Amino acid sequence: MAKNLTTIVKSSKHEARICRDTGIAIIGERINPTGRNSLQAELKAGKFDMVQKDAVAQLQAGATILDINSGLPRADEPTLLVQMIQAVQEAADDPPICIDTPNPKALEAALSYYCKDGAKPLVNSVTAEAESLTNILPMIKEYGAAVIGLCSSDSGIPETAEDRLRNTDIIMDAAAKVGIPAEDVIIDCLVLTLGAKWEAGKIALEAIAMIVEKYGVNITMGASNISFGLPDRENLTSFFMAISAFAGLSCPICNPMKTQEVISLQAANLIMARDPHAMKWIKGFRARQSG
Amino acid sequence: MAKNLTTIVKSSKHEARICRDTGIAIIGERINPTGRNSLQAELKAGKFDMVQKDAVAQLQAGATILDINSGLPRADEPTLLVQMIQAVQEAADDPPICIDTPNPKALEAALSYYCKDGAKPLVNSVTAEAESLTNILPMIKEYGAAVIGLCSSDSGIPETAEDRLRNTDIIMDAAAKVGIPAEDVIIDCLVLTLGAKWEAGKIALEAIAMIVEKYGVNITMGASNISFGLPDRENLTSFFMAISAFAGLSCPICNPMKTQEVISLQAANLIMARDPHAMKWIKGFRARQSG
Repeated sequence: MAKNLTTIVKSSKHEARICRDTGIAIIGERINPTGRNSLQAELKAGKFDMVQKDAVAQLQAGATILDINSGLPRADEPTLLVQMIQAVQEAADDPPICIDTPNPKALEAALSYYCKDGAKPLVNSVTAEAESLTNILPMIKEYGAAVIGLCSSDSGIPETAEDRLRNTDIIMDAAAKVGIPAEDVIIDCLVLTLGAKWEAGKIALEAIAMIVEKYGVNITMGASNISFGLPDRENLTSFFMAISAFAGLSCPICNPMKTQEVISLQAANLIMARDPHAMKWIKGFRARQSG
Repeated sequence: MAKNLTTIVKSSKHEARICRDTGIAIIGERINPTGRNSLQAELKAGKFDMVQKDAVAQLQAGATILDINSGLPRADEPTLLVQMIQAVQEAADDPPICIDTPNPKALEAALSYYCKDGAKPLVNSVTAEAESLTNILPMIKEYGAAVIGLCSSDSGIPETAEDRLRNTDIIMDAAAKVGIPAEDVIIDCLVLTLGAKWEAGKIALEAIAMIVEKYGVNITMGASNISFGLPDRENLTSFFMAISAFAGLSCPICNPMKTQEVISLQAANLIMARDPHAMKWIKGFRARQSG
């Protein structure tokens, strides 16, 4: 059993520590124009009000890191991504962030803007594909960032838990080779939807357990994918998050405005003895009562 | 890793199979006068309307076995317990039952009345105490029943998961000695309340995993105890049940009228790939919509 590693993500002002021994960290997913027409319209008009509002609201709701995705069709992504980061820094007292782009030029622009005065972002993401590892990992190393490794490969999303572990091996080896320490790699096991593949939950949980056992790395996921297309999504996603936390999930990318999902993580923390004297559970309950 | 065992509990008409490989069975807890003044008053007046109503409602809500507890202060328990069983049989088409009494005379009366025409009840419970094992196990064997083993001992409720496993060893050995097969023993790991002992969840989960690993036996629990005295009890209990199901819980004693708890078990079944094509999840959702 590998030791549970601690990933540190920080801005020049604030630090977020991720380690399953002490509880679950929430990476807020809202600052992402994909599928959000209102946010797309704002960004096209060069406005960042919604980005700023989402930043503040997610931190208030318990996120400790904010994902910033600039995937706007036909945008000048390097410029837009930096503008979005600046907007978040300004509105929310420079919180720890996760730079989310598949575009190497946009990533380089963001890293070059952001990585000063000790700031260390999380980058979302590399895959086990040779091109991704070759293009992105040296940049991660150069800027001293942490990175999410999606365990997909040239042959797509793996079928089994074992294949997810194999792709994780590839990512961990490639990171080590360029000098990125294991604690700066967070693995995303790629949760499929139960509606399309009814064994998807079991596969993800097995993959998480195997990867944690071998590497002790932190584990993220876009948890809401599990329930896509099925009824009672919020309940299904929430129970999946609680069980995943027990299996080893440490920093889901999710929407902290979804109360039931946040409750699931607070409950999992308490149930796994990471909330001494239930202080955080009681505090969370009071916040919901007064909110 | 021991093979997952199947416990069969049956009346002369219906059979309930318990095995974690195929899903979670609910043992309905409602037919129990402890702390229920209205039910106590009815039973004192020799009325069984509430018992009969609770029997039907719990089966409709998804219970497959009904716990019947006759713990009424100053009652003639052997007579009352048999009357309660008769009332349930009459109202609910003779469902599989769990006879719940610490009184050996009442247990003997109930077994002697119930165990005919192939009926095989579950008995709640023995402990690892010498007196309990000596008094109760031979009766279980004689009547061919299944039994819940509470992992407490002469020194009370154990502190650690390891002590729970040790008490389970004592119960499993004693059962084997009188000729009760391992599949007819269901272990209750004794969940304490998080409000009094904040490590209680972790201890219970570790105990479940260790006992399942060693024996493959079915696991029950009175899950609601976990949240006693804390706010937002139903959520906390439900997330605990879902995580416990992943650890190895197979047949909680709970109130199937508590919708969120039932949802937690349905979600856990789907997430652990025990609900092919999400058919039961969708069916459960539709039943809630129309109910």
